[in-house]
Amino acid sequence: MRAIAAEAGVSIATVSRVMNGHVHVAPDTEQRVRRAVARLGARAPARRGSASGAIYVRCPYVLTDYFGVIVSSVAETLDLHGRRLVLSAGDAARDTQVLPGLPDDPGIAGAVLVVPPEPERELEALRAKDFPFVVIDPRTPLPRDIASVSAANLTAARSVTAHLVEWGHRRIGVIGGPGDWLASRSRLAGHTSALADAGVLPAPELLRSIEPTADWGYGAACELLDLPQRPTALVAFNDKAAVGALRAAYERELRVPADLSITGFDDIDLSRSTVPRLTTVRQPLEEMGRMAVSLLVRLLERHTVDTLHVELATQLVLRGSTGPVPRLP
Amino acid sequence: MRAIAAEAGVSIATVSRVMNGHVHVAPDTEQRVRRAVARLGARAPARRGSASGAIYVRCPYVLTDYFGVIVSSVAETLDLHGRRLVLSAGDAARDTQVLPGLPDDPGIAGAVLVVPPEPERELEALRAKDFPFVVIDPRTPLPRDIASVSAANLTAARSVTAHLVEWGHRRIGVIGGPGDWLASRSRLAGHTSALADAGVLPAPELLRSIEPTADWGYGAACELLDLPQRPTALVAFNDKAAVGALRAAYERELRVPADLSITGFDDIDLSRSTVPRLTTVRQPLEEMGRMAVSLLVRLLERHTVDTLHVELATQLVLRGSTGPVPRLP
Repeated sequence: MRAIAAEAGVSIATVSRVMNGHVHVAPDTEQRVRRAVARLGARAPARRGSASGAIYVRCPYVLTDYFGVIVSSVAETLDLHGRRLVLSAGDAARDTQVLPGLPDDPGIAGAVLVVPPEPERELEALRAKDFPFVVIDPRTPLPRDIASVSAANLTAARSVTAHLVEWGHRRIGVIGGPGDWLASRSRLAGHTSALADAGVLPAPELLRSIEPTADWGYGAACELLDLPQRPTALVAFNDKAAVGALRAAYERELRVPADLSITGFDDIDLSRSTVPRLTTVRQPLEEMGRMAVSLLVRLLERHTVDTLHVELATQLVLRGSTGPVPRLP
Repeated sequence: MRAIAAEAGVSIATVSRVMNGHVHVAPDTEQRVRRAVARLGARAPARRGSASGAIYVRCPYVLTDYFGVIVSSVAETLDLHGRRLVLSAGDAARDTQVLPGLPDDPGIAGAVLVVPPEPERELEALRAKDFPFVVIDPRTPLPRDIASVSAANLTAARSVTAHLVEWGHRRIGVIGGPGDWLASRSRLAGHTSALADAGVLPAPELLRSIEPTADWGYGAACELLDLPQRPTALVAFNDKAAVGALRAAYERELRVPADLSITGFDDIDLSRSTVPRLTTVRQPLEEMGRMAVSLLVRLLERHTVDTLHVELATQLVLRGSTGPVPRLP
């Protein structure tokens, strides 16, 4: 009311009379007020509650390193913006149906969805309702009008395999992430691309798809190392899976990196304490959280929605777990 | 109104008249209504909003394994109770002053505080305001009327050291947690107690206090292993610190467990993939989260507050990183 009055150059009482359909208002005054409402409306936040409402953060996984660091960073950044964070987390949250109800929740102004398990059409439905949200690490490629943040997975994986190819490796086992994650497919594409540069196509028997934990990494590495013709290098989806691979190598009396090179991904502090230390990729997890909040704040503050797909650069970190391809006997 | 009317055996309109101080009510009817209000009041939730308000979860740390698993479990359990979770997390949250404002927040019905950094008097002030909250892993021993949940740290650490003592170790290095955590002090007490049973007092130069990460664990282990008379075993505050200790041993060409035994704590999946696998303590982290929510729900539903300090049992998990004390040359 106050803003409309100021914009129209009339008293608050006059605005009130116009808004309530009062008859005692001069026609040109009424028009002045209605125009002010229209002008302000165009600049105003898209929905009620958006100025102060809470942000719903959905991360339906156990908050370990990757998810935990992202959610922590989102929490810190929302706090800087004076926004309250409503959390949905844990594996059990994967089965709850929450997205359709979010736009109608008066206390929720927007959302950050971390690797949302929902099919793309649910995200599109949310977008169609003009509900502001940002996706971190989408599982599927999203339409241009849904904001998303992820690491430059393809480039990162390409640099890992290129590093191995440079050292002569051609037969490289891939301990990949879940098959339905875009990150997994992007990284596989990066791997394939670097290998193709050396004139090699990836052998299907060298590809594994796992939950990114040490246990699963160990299992996949065992399979790969027990192949009749074993790979000379293993690229793992994350550092924990790589730790599992190190163990599988140890049990087979394979020296790393003399007999076998192993790489991780994420650069969690663990990767500096393994034996040998892990060659890995530093993911900008904290920056991904900050960037997601920053995009969301822009969506909340502006009426127009930009086309926003952000990929953040990673960094190849060379340590002791990779070396020249062993000479075959 | 409906509940009072039912309790008093009068109409809702009558209750309304009494509550509004209306004069046209028979004195005995009025008294009946007032008594019903008093009876219901005694059973009613302590504060407004407690029936449906959100639960504030404060975990001012990066959500890695320990903190992440607890918060995920709290999130899943609150969801089962139909409660919304408002999260404050990340290292930066440690500096924000939020507890004093919680009781006056109409949207917040209660809180779960994970290893709260606040001094005890702030927790007592919160309790004095009748605000329902539960502390997970308090830093300091709390008064009896503040509900808390933690692992049975003393018993757990005692069982670890007893296991080492049984294998002949007497000179045991302690890579302990932060000195201002109750968990650190309880575990040290457990260690000391098991050692004392063997007639040994812990040597001060064998005690270290660290942030529980692999990097810090590595640093502390290096110091301990470079002592003129090095320990024959290291007990680490968590599995990640133990991974750092394994690396320090490796660099010194100490075989684990032939030359040096190492133990972890937590039993994260990593501990099954190290070389050798870690002897560790399984912490009931998920159950700690569930128990905290269950206590909080009881605080919210009942008017009276029980004396509730809960310690959950742990489990010693024997794996390959511990063995008999080496024979000295």
